[in-house]
Amino acid sequence: MSITILPIPLDSDFSPANIPFGVFRDGETTSGCSRIGDYIIDLHVCQEYGIFEDLRLPKNIFFNRPLNDFMSLGKEVTKEVRQTIMSTFILDGQLAINDIWPIEMFRKAGSVQMVLPITIGDYTDFYSSKEHATNVGIMFRDPKNALLPNWLHIPVGYHGRSSSIVVSGTEVHRPNGQTIQGNDTSPTYGPSRQVDFELEMAFVIGKNSGLGQPIGINEAESYIFGLMLFNDWSARDIQKWEYVPLGPFLAKNFASTLSPWIITMESLEPFKVEAQPREKPILPYLESSQNCNYDIHLEVAIETEGNSETVVTRSNFKYLYWSMIQQLAHHTVNGCNVRVGDLLASGTISGPHEGSYGSMLEIAWKGTKPVPMKDGTTRIFIQDGDTVKLKGWAGNGSSRVGFGECEGKLIPALNT
Amino acid sequence: MSITILPIPLDSDFSPANIPFGVFRDGETTSGCSRIGDYIIDLHVCQEYGIFEDLRLPKNIFFNRPLNDFMSLGKEVTKEVRQTIMSTFILDGQLAINDIWPIEMFRKAGSVQMVLPITIGDYTDFYSSKEHATNVGIMFRDPKNALLPNWLHIPVGYHGRSSSIVVSGTEVHRPNGQTIQGNDTSPTYGPSRQVDFELEMAFVIGKNSGLGQPIGINEAESYIFGLMLFNDWSARDIQKWEYVPLGPFLAKNFASTLSPWIITMESLEPFKVEAQPREKPILPYLESSQNCNYDIHLEVAIETEGNSETVVTRSNFKYLYWSMIQQLAHHTVNGCNVRVGDLLASGTISGPHEGSYGSMLEIAWKGTKPVPMKDGTTRIFIQDGDTVKLKGWAGNGSSRVGFGECEGKLIPALNT
Repeated sequence: MSITILPIPLDSDFSPANIPFGVFRDGETTSGCSRIGDYIIDLHVCQEYGIFEDLRLPKNIFFNRPLNDFMSLGKEVTKEVRQTIMSTFILDGQLAINDIWPIEMFRKAGSVQMVLPITIGDYTDFYSSKEHATNVGIMFRDPKNALLPNWLHIPVGYHGRSSSIVVSGTEVHRPNGQTIQGNDTSPTYGPSRQVDFELEMAFVIGKNSGLGQPIGINEAESYIFGLMLFNDWSARDIQKWEYVPLGPFLAKNFASTLSPWIITMESLEPFKVEAQPREKPILPYLESSQNCNYDIHLEVAIETEGNSETVVTRSNFKYLYWSMIQQLAHHTVNGCNVRVGDLLASGTISGPHEGSYGSMLEIAWKGTKPVPMKDGTTRIFIQDGDTVKLKGWAGNGSSRVGFGECEGKLIPALNT
Repeated sequence: MSITILPIPLDSDFSPANIPFGVFRDGETTSGCSRIGDYIIDLHVCQEYGIFEDLRLPKNIFFNRPLNDFMSLGKEVTKEVRQTIMSTFILDGQLAINDIWPIEMFRKAGSVQMVLPITIGDYTDFYSSKEHATNVGIMFRDPKNALLPNWLHIPVGYHGRSSSIVVSGTEVHRPNGQTIQGNDTSPTYGPSRQVDFELEMAFVIGKNSGLGQPIGINEAESYIFGLMLFNDWSARDIQKWEYVPLGPFLAKNFASTLSPWIITMESLEPFKVEAQPREKPILPYLESSQNCNYDIHLEVAIETEGNSETVVTRSNFKYLYWSMIQQLAHHTVNGCNVRVGDLLASGTISGPHEGSYGSMLEIAWKGTKPVPMKDGTTRIFIQDGDTVKLKGWAGNGSSRVGFGECEGKLIPALNT
């Protein structure tokens, strides 16, 4: 028996402190997996080789299915699996591979295709960044009363579309739809001229709640399995025409891009920080004395055709006014139930100053401040051929917990 | 071999012209089923006894699973199954039972529990009744400009919650939530005081479409498997406070009640009628020369405690301004995909005159016209203990195609 040590690059999102969960495809089958440094670990093969023997997992829990069944085993079990991966494969902070294990237990990242790791039930999108809501209010309503009256009392949210959530790397067609041009009073049909990204994070529900049974704010975290990067593609011109009075619909549901790895709440625990201060009193069901925000650096780059990449914003998950546990307590206060695999996204995460805004609408301030790209062109929205890349990470070096890639290329509208 | 003839009551929703699909539970197992008169036919037992032998259905297609897999076989197959049920069990317009079949092939309606017949993927709610949108506009906005500028151009819709859609018979808790009382500027927490029903119909998607691939209006009907009754329970006071700018959320997602039977498009074909006339030109992708509305009588009754039942409205599905094929063409024009089991609801179906409005908000005109009940009480919204009952049917006698029950009792809010 011999052991091969594979160093983990210092800037890797997948340090020994991370140990995320995902699913990859190999031909006709899929496997649940984790990742350390540049290597993907096939958890089905691990189970077949007895690595989780003491945990008595159901047979084939990682084989040919999304992670929903695995998450349903409960955090007591999933935490143990994560700990077992750590203790089995990490030696002195590096990936250590024992030659008694089969070679197919490890895949080089990039050699297999990552797929959506969960079957998403309901998807909800919040609107929890005060800076984003304020910016939008200034641009489209009244600069003096930018925040609507309910905003400081309610984690405002709405239901979105699950079917069109795609994994990082999937190309996205520019949507066709109805828009109003200039001073027209009737709409015209054609490709959206204002396709935007929204820098968001989304959390995954790992435990069912009962219909009619609210989740209290202090138990909310136990329902959250992990966190992912999320680009909520938006067509601003379609949105403007359609969204009164029932909210955004076709402006959003043509596609959203999700990163492939679920970063567990356990790995993010060290990065908890205080909530943002309240500007108005909130109702008791939304109050918590916990540290419920997370210090996670966020960044968006646009890669234009020809591969030059320009970072257009740097933000942070900690800027959110409404935290995940507040979102979940609010979502269920009326008895609405959640199910394993539901996805709840934050809304655009804008920071407090220019350079930290989470959408092109804000960065280019409604088209008035074109954003220079490294290739000499400018952008006010996303152009065909652009790839939007979200990044997110907490900590650094051997404690760095990163989110991997969340990328999507915008391709031309279908000519229909 | 002898044959027993079981007469079908003349007013049955389940005449020989109907032959719907549903799912019932018996102990730990469920079976796909159909219904003729007062009898439920177990389609799994039918398959085991070779009744569908010529159709080469996958084994156990009706056993312990929702109808999603069955619908996915395609209309060529599902139409044949429906025809086979007709030709096997109907004799001279009555239900004919051959004594070579096992007794468990037939269950008396009411002796087994009907469950949700499908796993619902995404649920979308439209706003397609001009009378409803107009009434709401008169009450809450400007009587002279009751319809918003987009309404005559777009089948306005929004995404709703799948997890809280329940089958007829399920009790519904009055939701707790935030509302604004009187002249307050800050919200208070407590049970909604304005729980309402919404008389709707919902259609079920029976065929997947691809992401990025719009469904043309002339192919839209081929994606629709069937139709059901739908009560979109609504808390008006919660809605009023939360819905700007992203639409209704907790006001709707505490529960929606669905009837248990999917009524096929084939059975509804004879009841097609002309679309409502257009008041403004619409874009070509929404135009169709087909008869795309359906003449389906709708009725809502409130049963107060003590079992007295008062019909509070009589409407018709034909009143909708936007048809199902227009809704589906619009929903996908931007490339949004649909999947088997998705549910698309109409929005409140109000008719053109008093007596045909589809919600208590309109019937009692924002609380100004209390509605007398047979027991001597009045209602402006739904009270705890009330059961809301939707009914729907087309045709009559041996051609009657009805929808069965869609009922839900409102029970008190949890004291949380």
